[in-house]
Amino acid sequence: MDSYQKLIAHFKEYRLLESIGAIAGWDQHTYMPPKGANHRAAQMGYLAKLGHEKLTSPRIGELLGELAPPSPPAPLPQGERGGSLPPHPQPLSPGGEKGDEAVNVREIRRAYERAVKVPGTLVEEIAKTTSQAQNVWAEARKQNDFPSFAPWLEKIVALKREEAAAVGYKDSPYDALLDEYEPGATAAEITRVFAELRADLVPLVGAIAESGKRPRKDILTREFAVDRQHIFGQAAAAAIGFDFQAGRLDTTVHPFCSGIGPGDCRLTTRYHPREFNQGFWGILHEAGHGIYEQGLDPEHFGTPCGSFASLGIHESQSRLWENQVGRGRPFWEHFFPRLKQTFPGTLDDVTLDDFLFAANKVEKSFIRVEADEATYNMHIILRFDMEQALMTGDLKPSDVPGAWSERFKAMLDQTPPDDTQGCLQDIHWSMGGLGYFPTYTLGNLYAAQFIQQARKDLGDLDADFRIGRFERLKGWLNEKVHRPGQRYRAGELCQRVTGSALSHKPLIAYLRGKYEALYNI
Amino acid sequence: MDSYQKLIAHFKEYRLLESIGAIAGWDQHTYMPPKGANHRAAQMGYLAKLGHEKLTSPRIGELLGELAPPSPPAPLPQGERGGSLPPHPQPLSPGGEKGDEAVNVREIRRAYERAVKVPGTLVEEIAKTTSQAQNVWAEARKQNDFPSFAPWLEKIVALKREEAAAVGYKDSPYDALLDEYEPGATAAEITRVFAELRADLVPLVGAIAESGKRPRKDILTREFAVDRQHIFGQAAAAAIGFDFQAGRLDTTVHPFCSGIGPGDCRLTTRYHPREFNQGFWGILHEAGHGIYEQGLDPEHFGTPCGSFASLGIHESQSRLWENQVGRGRPFWEHFFPRLKQTFPGTLDDVTLDDFLFAANKVEKSFIRVEADEATYNMHIILRFDMEQALMTGDLKPSDVPGAWSERFKAMLDQTPPDDTQGCLQDIHWSMGGLGYFPTYTLGNLYAAQFIQQARKDLGDLDADFRIGRFERLKGWLNEKVHRPGQRYRAGELCQRVTGSALSHKPLIAYLRGKYEALYNI
Repeated sequence: MDSYQKLIAHFKEYRLLESIGAIAGWDQHTYMPPKGANHRAAQMGYLAKLGHEKLTSPRIGELLGELAPPSPPAPLPQGERGGSLPPHPQPLSPGGEKGDEAVNVREIRRAYERAVKVPGTLVEEIAKTTSQAQNVWAEARKQNDFPSFAPWLEKIVALKREEAAAVGYKDSPYDALLDEYEPGATAAEITRVFAELRADLVPLVGAIAESGKRPRKDILTREFAVDRQHIFGQAAAAAIGFDFQAGRLDTTVHPFCSGIGPGDCRLTTRYHPREFNQGFWGILHEAGHGIYEQGLDPEHFGTPCGSFASLGIHESQSRLWENQVGRGRPFWEHFFPRLKQTFPGTLDDVTLDDFLFAANKVEKSFIRVEADEATYNMHIILRFDMEQALMTGDLKPSDVPGAWSERFKAMLDQTPPDDTQGCLQDIHWSMGGLGYFPTYTLGNLYAAQFIQQARKDLGDLDADFRIGRFERLKGWLNEKVHRPGQRYRAGELCQRVTGSALSHKPLIAYLRGKYEALYNI
Repeated sequence: MDSYQKLIAHFKEYRLLESIGAIAGWDQHTYMPPKGANHRAAQMGYLAKLGHEKLTSPRIGELLGELAPPSPPAPLPQGERGGSLPPHPQPLSPGGEKGDEAVNVREIRRAYERAVKVPGTLVEEIAKTTSQAQNVWAEARKQNDFPSFAPWLEKIVALKREEAAAVGYKDSPYDALLDEYEPGATAAEITRVFAELRADLVPLVGAIAESGKRPRKDILTREFAVDRQHIFGQAAAAAIGFDFQAGRLDTTVHPFCSGIGPGDCRLTTRYHPREFNQGFWGILHEAGHGIYEQGLDPEHFGTPCGSFASLGIHESQSRLWENQVGRGRPFWEHFFPRLKQTFPGTLDDVTLDDFLFAANKVEKSFIRVEADEATYNMHIILRFDMEQALMTGDLKPSDVPGAWSERFKAMLDQTPPDDTQGCLQDIHWSMGGLGYFPTYTLGNLYAAQFIQQARKDLGDLDADFRIGRFERLKGWLNEKVHRPGQRYRAGELCQRVTGSALSHKPLIAYLRGKYEALYNI
């Protein structure tokens, strides 16, 4: 094996450990009995330690040193033979800087360099703490008991600040966390994009409120038996292209999608017998993530060429299927008669127009995952602001409930009735996922930009959707977005696929088009 | 840390890797999607490799060398200070040879010495092969297609012979495999015990056949809705003492129990809507295993003092609850009215006597896991003989179906109609578990001997069972059998708990007592 092959074999072991941890993590959130929590924390902590040791092994450093270095070495003085100099870097195979080998070396180098800055003991501490904190959070959420979670949040913020300090940053400790999820992005940049989005979004949401038009409230809160929600949601996920021979759908507290590896991707959701919203669009959302995971090249599993580009791009895939496709009229022209059949009698008095209006209701509300496509981004901006304040120390963890209410009131003109519907609603902080939230709105932006381009490239996609066919769109996404893996950074991929840099305009155009028709504005 | 503490810390990492593999293995047999099989094989293979590296690490050898050696070292010549001699072995803490430290060192030494004889490449090869072979077997069983499984069996037998050769043995390569499951047992010894059992069993089964008495056939093959079987079985498992806050019950193809670690034990079963037998007593059986796992000392998790003694002892716990308790009149005096309530109308015409007779029917049949308590042991003797022949090479894997039919005919006077009901019925060979089957009948023997003693120690246990109370028996087993962990070898534990060496007599006495009454012999 040459240096490149050795590097790949080593890195694949790291990713294999990660994929083993993915089984343990999925099980923790679906089927693990409650008393198993402490032992699971030990298992996850140990896997994280092994993974960190593998990724930060000096062997990777040596192998990277033998391959093309970050900057080209100075030429040797004529006649000199460098006995003590490192061996001449091996040339990479053809393909230039976007060739598979160059991409893999570049991204492994990036992961390695980030990881060597964080001590193994800190990694293990974070894994153990967050594994236990997730159980505390689940109970605190159920009991509306923020004080029991507060010391855990405090510990997690302290650990994440330690991590940010170890990684290093220019402007804000938050940048160091953000970089893990959205390589290259910064808090300053996101603040700017979000500001542009907000500038157009606020008047749109205002106009909707002023229109006075409202959908019928009861349509999506009728009795929808959970077992039939499961059947209908699973059928829809299969229809848009999620392969159930290579995946599953189970229930959990906070839905997620976990790609275990080639041929194995786990979707999760939660059902409420009187909230059709939560289950169905939740499934489409996770199925969108799953279709991305299933669309990665299995031949490249365990290497950057076979890995997702960024969380923003990942989220673009879930939002695209959940919203752009799954809340549209063409989709429901196919599925609405089937929905009526699945829940006999439940929707007899409801027309397709009634249903679509209900499915696209815009209303200020407390729960992020139940928010509509327009106000959702306000929930993200709130969290993005609070996380930055937690990281700089401007906000103390124990002050989170008050700060949450205050900011929520300022932006959405309401006060959450309790913490369960406020700062305890999301699992992310208990998982140590600070820096993660902004990728959701980045996903909305990329989704709008991608499907705008797909419609240009593929012609009348709505005609496909009306007859329940989604292969052309899925195939386009497979080719343009999934198969490239990490060959391009998110912004670069967007530019390459759509011919334009990321912009808030496609999302705003899409939202305006939809809501101006529904609300007569 | 002193040498002992270092040894324990190292060994615990090995057991932590095993417990992570247990999650992956449980998932493989319960929820994994079919296309995930290849990647799972890679994951399991890698975990097996890491575990083997950990167990065979020279570091363990060094640490064992620093602790009490197998034989005491010769005293140093007077006046000499051994600069190059190994450090003086550290004394173990009080407790003598059954003290925790002595037991842990003894058993870790045993595991290490066995493991260092088997090359890591062979371990990995076995793990990968058997992971894939299990999927081939599941399909072959479904399709009655032995030829598709034959090359895998051939590969597995070859690998197990390689393993036996590496481990070493005196008389038969089979002994080397047996030792893994039942430390210290040999094929010759088991042959002798099984011969004694058979000598008493054959006339008993003969007398039953000649009695002409038969239970009503239809009682256990009526319509028992699967969801209600699940509810009833789960309630019974909870009643006998399995803690569902620290465990689960799921469905699979071939039922098993997997102890993930403290607070987390997974039972599995399979249901058939017209076979009450399979589901219910299968659950009691696995719950018996689970109660043993849950009864191990969590403080000693990851060390021999917190591990089960042998597979024979493990099986004794499942058989004890399944048969000795769960097929007895006192148990059903409590549960039979509840069974009738769970399946309203289904058993209106059935008396407790009818039901008990049906639950204790003795009949020659093809499927081991459905066999009664008497003929079951014949199924084991058949497999024990065949495995020995496969290991010595007297039987070729491709000849297994013919040899199976021939031996089955000779012992049970019937010929299986197909391989699905013959040599393809069990998962064990596809898992590489040759040497495992005899532990089932050893379990029957130990179970009979243990409960005979419990009845002596505790007085009228049947009075407990009649009112659905099982705590006293469970507590006795916890104290006498579970908590000792590996402090005693199986035979030694039996001697200690019951005052006698293993004997076939308690099992025969129990079977005679039951069947002579039922069959009027």
